[in-house]
Amino acid sequence: MSKLKNDLFLRACKRQDVERTPIWIMRQAGRYLPEYRSVRAKSDFLTMCKTPELAAEVTIQPVDIIGVDAAILFSDILVIPEAMGMHLEMNEGKGPVFPNPIRSAEDVYNLKDIDPTKELKYVIDAVTLTKKNLDNRVPLIGFSGSPWTLLTYMVEGKGSKNFSEVKKLIYNNPDLAHAVLDKLANTVADYLSAKIEAGCDAVQIFDTWGGILSQKDFEEFSLRYVEKIISRIKRKDEPIIFFAKGVHFKLDKLAATGADVLGLDWTMDLGKVRKEVGDKVALQGNLDPTVLYADKSYIKKEVKNVLNSFGKGNGHVFNLGHGVLPDIDPENVKALVQYVKEESVSFHRGDAEAQG
Amino acid sequence: MSKLKNDLFLRACKRQDVERTPIWIMRQAGRYLPEYRSVRAKSDFLTMCKTPELAAEVTIQPVDIIGVDAAILFSDILVIPEAMGMHLEMNEGKGPVFPNPIRSAEDVYNLKDIDPTKELKYVIDAVTLTKKNLDNRVPLIGFSGSPWTLLTYMVEGKGSKNFSEVKKLIYNNPDLAHAVLDKLANTVADYLSAKIEAGCDAVQIFDTWGGILSQKDFEEFSLRYVEKIISRIKRKDEPIIFFAKGVHFKLDKLAATGADVLGLDWTMDLGKVRKEVGDKVALQGNLDPTVLYADKSYIKKEVKNVLNSFGKGNGHVFNLGHGVLPDIDPENVKALVQYVKEESVSFHRGDAEAQG
Repeated sequence: MSKLKNDLFLRACKRQDVERTPIWIMRQAGRYLPEYRSVRAKSDFLTMCKTPELAAEVTIQPVDIIGVDAAILFSDILVIPEAMGMHLEMNEGKGPVFPNPIRSAEDVYNLKDIDPTKELKYVIDAVTLTKKNLDNRVPLIGFSGSPWTLLTYMVEGKGSKNFSEVKKLIYNNPDLAHAVLDKLANTVADYLSAKIEAGCDAVQIFDTWGGILSQKDFEEFSLRYVEKIISRIKRKDEPIIFFAKGVHFKLDKLAATGADVLGLDWTMDLGKVRKEVGDKVALQGNLDPTVLYADKSYIKKEVKNVLNSFGKGNGHVFNLGHGVLPDIDPENVKALVQYVKEESVSFHRGDAEAQG
Repeated sequence: MSKLKNDLFLRACKRQDVERTPIWIMRQAGRYLPEYRSVRAKSDFLTMCKTPELAAEVTIQPVDIIGVDAAILFSDILVIPEAMGMHLEMNEGKGPVFPNPIRSAEDVYNLKDIDPTKELKYVIDAVTLTKKNLDNRVPLIGFSGSPWTLLTYMVEGKGSKNFSEVKKLIYNNPDLAHAVLDKLANTVADYLSAKIEAGCDAVQIFDTWGGILSQKDFEEFSLRYVEKIISRIKRKDEPIIFFAKGVHFKLDKLAATGADVLGLDWTMDLGKVRKEVGDKVALQGNLDPTVLYADKSYIKKEVKNVLNSFGKGNGHVFNLGHGVLPDIDPENVKALVQYVKEESVSFHRGDAEAQG
């Protein structure tokens, strides 16, 4: 069916039979890897995003070094607002900053309409090159921030504790907020469609800041735009993963967005969520990223806990509940991948309870 | 029954009949009030905590100015580790810092055993003076951080994004973590008992960082120590409120701790939680604090949404879902209190659906 040598990840996304649970790791192409830091030492972060050879190189590193079952294209969610004309500064350690955040209708109207195949051609080129260099070993995932998460960064301008500015916008000028969110939804849909067209085998939408909203505000300002994106993405059968960190509510609605997979953070109970929505979507997650600070025997025990929490049967993609942290020992990440590969086999054999 | 002129808050905590829903606001004695800032301009934060006259003055300000139905003693959760011997620096804007955080068994064994009536006598004196000056107008709430939340600050030493250090401690040295947590639980129980003995009419336990833990780690490292505290607090019928921010799971266990009231953040659905646990505990919350950036008509609409979400009947204490932010207009806080007082009357009249 697939030219891919290892398509476990794609089959799990579609809740098809697998011999074992596949694993990939959010931020797997990242600073915890010495090989990544060598590339990063020679280029700044945005240059890496914008140079297909460098992006492809670090994207493939964890496939070679860590043994994950999928690659995820090295990039950043903020390349979209940057392409729309917002000046972006990436300060390692301090996080990204927009020195001129969006605060007025004028700022909004100054945002450029973009065609991602043009203004973000470097991402598309990176997909093409990465697919070539991966040589069909594992699937390639493309990603985008959700409109709400992009808006949050664009309005706050930098890291925020209380997200006061974006909350002021949605309460005091909801029409303006909706105008930007709608524009972002169209752009993200085009962007992810272009990534799929260029060869991505799956895409993930990150809603990093959905969890700062009340339930009704989440539906109004985040979820409806994710639904719009999913309905507009041009794809054959490439799965869509929706990861809304901190969103512990309205799971039935998350599962009804059209996404094939829900990503879950480490505060969620996989088994409980599976009972609620598991026949509609696959689930991805959800080991606490800080467990990788522990010794290997503890990591192994926690791998078993996550596998047991989901239970036997199809539809589980193993991952952390958030990105791998920069000071984690790569040996522990390798061990994690190995444990998942070994321990998950028994969850897929003679599987009377399998769903899907 | 009570000498208090306004005991609506206490009756709501006990799920007794009330004429309207009572309201108080987390951090109501705080920087958003110009009257607070005048006091603060003349003293540093810790001096205010340690001077009963100043603590009493700012504690009573929101009763006079904002019209809340309960006062909460001005203090800080970190006075406990400070009394145990940890040097504490309070930097306005930057947050509190322990320059020498706990990282080793030696650090733990250097923590002093304290008797809160001695080492924290200034807090007890502040309770006595505040009760006198309040003249029974409204009840006085005392508070403490939970052992887990105190441990988090003591180990991280300052604000943290990933809480790496405290997670390393619980995964790699759980026995040491449990030793500190147990010591803290005993101290917090003594501390809250002493506050009640000195006149507090209710106490609240803040578990600000419970929500960074997986469900099983929350039970092991936070919840069991809150249970221990509640079982050890000496009280007559003073209600205990447990507010575990970000803890959206194991609500049945939260309701079984012996707490009379569960505080809920703004991502929770009051009505849904009430259905699950509402006959065991009262609920407190949960307006998104950033709604106070909106105009008054929007605030009023959101007040109605929160009241509707809980529904008719007893057992609701209105509050924000987290502390009031320092740059909020006090006029909006006054308006909030007024709207709750007006709009909630109809939720307590001819109330066939009332619980409790």
